[in-house]
Amino acid sequence: MRVAMCQIDATVGDLTGNVARIVDFATRAAAAGAEVAVFPELALCGYPPEDLLVRPSFRQAHDAALLALAKAVPASLDVLVGCVATNETASSVGGRALHNAVALLQNGTCRIVARKSLLPTYDVFDESRYFEPWKTPEQNVVTLRGRRVGIVVCEDGWNDEHFFDVRSYAIDPVERVVQAGAQLVVNLSASPWSRGKEEFRHRMVASASARHGVPMLYVNLVGGDVELQFDGGSLAVKPTGVAAQPIAFREALVVVDTDAPWTQTPAPVAVEAMQHAAIVQGIRDYVRKFGFSAVAVGLSGGIDSALVATLAVDALGKENVVGIGMPSSHSSDHSVVDAHALAHNRGIAFHLLPIAPLQEAFTSVLAPVFAGTAPGLAEENLQARMRGTLLMAFANKHGHLVLTTGNKSECAVGYCTIYGDTNGALAPIADLWKTEVWALSRWLNREGVRIPVRSIEKAPSAELRPGQFDTDSLPEYAELDPVLRCLIEEDLSVEATAARTGMARARVADLFAKVMASEWKRYQYPPTVRVSDRCWSGRRMPVAHRYRER
Amino acid sequence: MRVAMCQIDATVGDLTGNVARIVDFATRAAAAGAEVAVFPELALCGYPPEDLLVRPSFRQAHDAALLALAKAVPASLDVLVGCVATNETASSVGGRALHNAVALLQNGTCRIVARKSLLPTYDVFDESRYFEPWKTPEQNVVTLRGRRVGIVVCEDGWNDEHFFDVRSYAIDPVERVVQAGAQLVVNLSASPWSRGKEEFRHRMVASASARHGVPMLYVNLVGGDVELQFDGGSLAVKPTGVAAQPIAFREALVVVDTDAPWTQTPAPVAVEAMQHAAIVQGIRDYVRKFGFSAVAVGLSGGIDSALVATLAVDALGKENVVGIGMPSSHSSDHSVVDAHALAHNRGIAFHLLPIAPLQEAFTSVLAPVFAGTAPGLAEENLQARMRGTLLMAFANKHGHLVLTTGNKSECAVGYCTIYGDTNGALAPIADLWKTEVWALSRWLNREGVRIPVRSIEKAPSAELRPGQFDTDSLPEYAELDPVLRCLIEEDLSVEATAARTGMARARVADLFAKVMASEWKRYQYPPTVRVSDRCWSGRRMPVAHRYRER
Repeated sequence: MRVAMCQIDATVGDLTGNVARIVDFATRAAAAGAEVAVFPELALCGYPPEDLLVRPSFRQAHDAALLALAKAVPASLDVLVGCVATNETASSVGGRALHNAVALLQNGTCRIVARKSLLPTYDVFDESRYFEPWKTPEQNVVTLRGRRVGIVVCEDGWNDEHFFDVRSYAIDPVERVVQAGAQLVVNLSASPWSRGKEEFRHRMVASASARHGVPMLYVNLVGGDVELQFDGGSLAVKPTGVAAQPIAFREALVVVDTDAPWTQTPAPVAVEAMQHAAIVQGIRDYVRKFGFSAVAVGLSGGIDSALVATLAVDALGKENVVGIGMPSSHSSDHSVVDAHALAHNRGIAFHLLPIAPLQEAFTSVLAPVFAGTAPGLAEENLQARMRGTLLMAFANKHGHLVLTTGNKSECAVGYCTIYGDTNGALAPIADLWKTEVWALSRWLNREGVRIPVRSIEKAPSAELRPGQFDTDSLPEYAELDPVLRCLIEEDLSVEATAARTGMARARVADLFAKVMASEWKRYQYPPTVRVSDRCWSGRRMPVAHRYRER
Repeated sequence: MRVAMCQIDATVGDLTGNVARIVDFATRAAAAGAEVAVFPELALCGYPPEDLLVRPSFRQAHDAALLALAKAVPASLDVLVGCVATNETASSVGGRALHNAVALLQNGTCRIVARKSLLPTYDVFDESRYFEPWKTPEQNVVTLRGRRVGIVVCEDGWNDEHFFDVRSYAIDPVERVVQAGAQLVVNLSASPWSRGKEEFRHRMVASASARHGVPMLYVNLVGGDVELQFDGGSLAVKPTGVAAQPIAFREALVVVDTDAPWTQTPAPVAVEAMQHAAIVQGIRDYVRKFGFSAVAVGLSGGIDSALVATLAVDALGKENVVGIGMPSSHSSDHSVVDAHALAHNRGIAFHLLPIAPLQEAFTSVLAPVFAGTAPGLAEENLQARMRGTLLMAFANKHGHLVLTTGNKSECAVGYCTIYGDTNGALAPIADLWKTEVWALSRWLNREGVRIPVRSIEKAPSAELRPGQFDTDSLPEYAELDPVLRCLIEEDLSVEATAARTGMARARVADLFAKVMASEWKRYQYPPTVRVSDRCWSGRRMPVAHRYRER
């Protein structure tokens, strides 16, 4: 049987656009001789639709779009597409109004043939807010062209006790459809990428294929939805290997023959290459889906802003990125030189807006309420806010979005000024630790200098007062990042983190307190491109609390 | 049987402080002759603990605190207290690691005697993220002093088909414990207040008491947790009436005799009085729980800032509120006069920081990139950001928190400047429609002018350009607010909203588009004191999407 894996980019809420895209792929699939076409989870409405699902009018529009889609796809093709379905028993026995479901489009008709059983409700996922879990996944089996096809949806494939050594949910839908006679299992997914995810997914799907002795088709969404970066990476897996190399971070139509031998092995990809592709997609798709085309980045001469500008050029083209330098009297000479060099290297427009007149004006306006006080944090924050305000003014005037240049390490400990350097529509690297920022920058320079070497090598400084360096108030990042990873990404205790990293327990406790005390800043932080499985919006800590660890 | 309803204010994560508070109340309850004391849902760790629950070290600290608490309460008393319990079957059959539970403390021992079955996962609630639902609430019955006591937790009491005419969940735990022989039902709650909630709750509990013919004790948390405002309002209800008037928005220890006749009727309270109490609590508890004592408010002479400053004075005392006036050349004469009058009426410090020097400096710094453009939105936003930056500078210098003065109407349509007037640690009135802002202000003036009458009566204006009024770009608020309520609070379609309100469908569609297009501003909006059942953090819409309604 020839199956088209349709790895599409669906936009949340864009029912018309998504229908057009699905029809386009289905038409091409039919032309390529496919008998069955499989689209990702919730391909019709995009993922995640969030509280759009709460609006009855949205659900009506969705259902109308599904019927229209059924009539528009080629009649020669059987189409499986992720969509929303009404929970028919909600009013009689209680439960959520909806199922996360799969429709089979056949000869102009539409029938719901599968519903999702395992609803991720952790990290960035909130599916239990909307959907009722399906108790009987063994019913998710249909006969297509004489083959029994088992259908599961994303998380349904992530509860194999034999693979995970732990049971997260009561049932294993893959096992159930195989027991119900499935000769082929397809998984419709909307699984966002994070560090190592592509390799993990292949191992998991391969393990299930080997255990059950059936081919598995894993069809994943691609594209950026604000924070979440779907990488696609769709897979056709048999115990003997994969049918084709997975394609990451772009739309793809891959037709596989389930009767052919599949013997390839997915080639490993450097983590930096995947991070680069994810963040570039994140910038490009956010700007595009938001209806903009260009961005402004404050260039300090430091590595964070140099990396963000470079990623923005890769995403949008050099003509759509503007760098703004905003030096003060505390800025080193090399700051402006390095910012200039980056802009020149990347070929982007660059404007220099020195902030001295603003410093004078703020000093004069604030004199009545600052009189007799010593310069301190208020003055440092003020500088960052002058810059944030200039950037927004430029962006508002010329129709740009501002990109925020903060990294995960500084965001973690609150080493940033809210309404200052945190300003922006999107934070491309706030889910990258500072040590990862350096590694990715070096990787980008692997075939020639794109990012000025001095920006990578100089000691990090906010330059908000004379001679200031990050290490005045923080450990070296090589020491800091492993500690923050333990505390934030692994939820280790202060005690366990100290034991693991060798940092003194009191210092770890101090860092943990800093992390927990800066939650309020992150509450108002811009959306962050997600590249780890513990990004800020997937870590939901109380803003005000009194929890301490020592 | 004498039962103490212990309506306490628990702080999230403050295990030590919460234990001390529970011991204090239990000791007083014993002294007052109580045999049983009942505390609210999750009283031990505060509500909502969010991802603190994900940390193993937090769970260990919680369990240790519970054991310590069991030893510390008076031995003469049986204590029921809300806490977290391990889901013993998670590893064998799958499911969440925890239950939202109730412990019985008796003679120095501690035993989990009830677990929550119905887990709210909608609006601001995310309990399915952490807890496994309890399938057998009929087991939540214990014998205390010879009486069979049924125990339910908050939402467990909110699925009575006879009351709601609809079934939200499969089971009704109240019915189950009564069928299992409960002669008295206690509900441990953490139920935040919203418009009309106190009256609704009384009707609901009274309905259950009448239907089942048993007394119901409803013991609710009190205090502000950032956005959520728990009002207490604990109730002891029999079919014949309540035992005592509910006490709202303060801690209370009320001992009731379940064998006495209960015949009172709760006295109705004006909605403005409840809104006032909720927002005052919200400001006070946020500032206190955050470790601050004073706030700064930008005073424009308009009604929003006048109301916020007045509420802040009621919350923190006049010595802890500072008003800052920041007039520009576009400001009317009455703006400064009215701001002054408010500060004088309320007895708060007031500083006047005219922004003309900042306007000149920004004009000069931005000249290279603004040359040849006409003044517009960029210049208007710039003014708002100068003010926001001044406010933050004052607050940083003097250790204040900034309160954001935006209301729900402007927040809904994006009529605000991000990093400008949206700056602040807390938004006290961003869940009040503009028409409610006026009503609450008039109510505050009911026994004498506290808020200058002209601030209430003048036409709203942002004063960011000469002669600007809100009605230049928006309908009158009396017309706007009902439309926004339909679209946002009731999720009505554009079509249904037009039919309900009489506004032309194209204008409704335009407003809906404004609401949906300003989601990105609300993503970075400060925490908002919740007084409706559709506050911004309970409405989770995609930031970038392409959904339209016409």
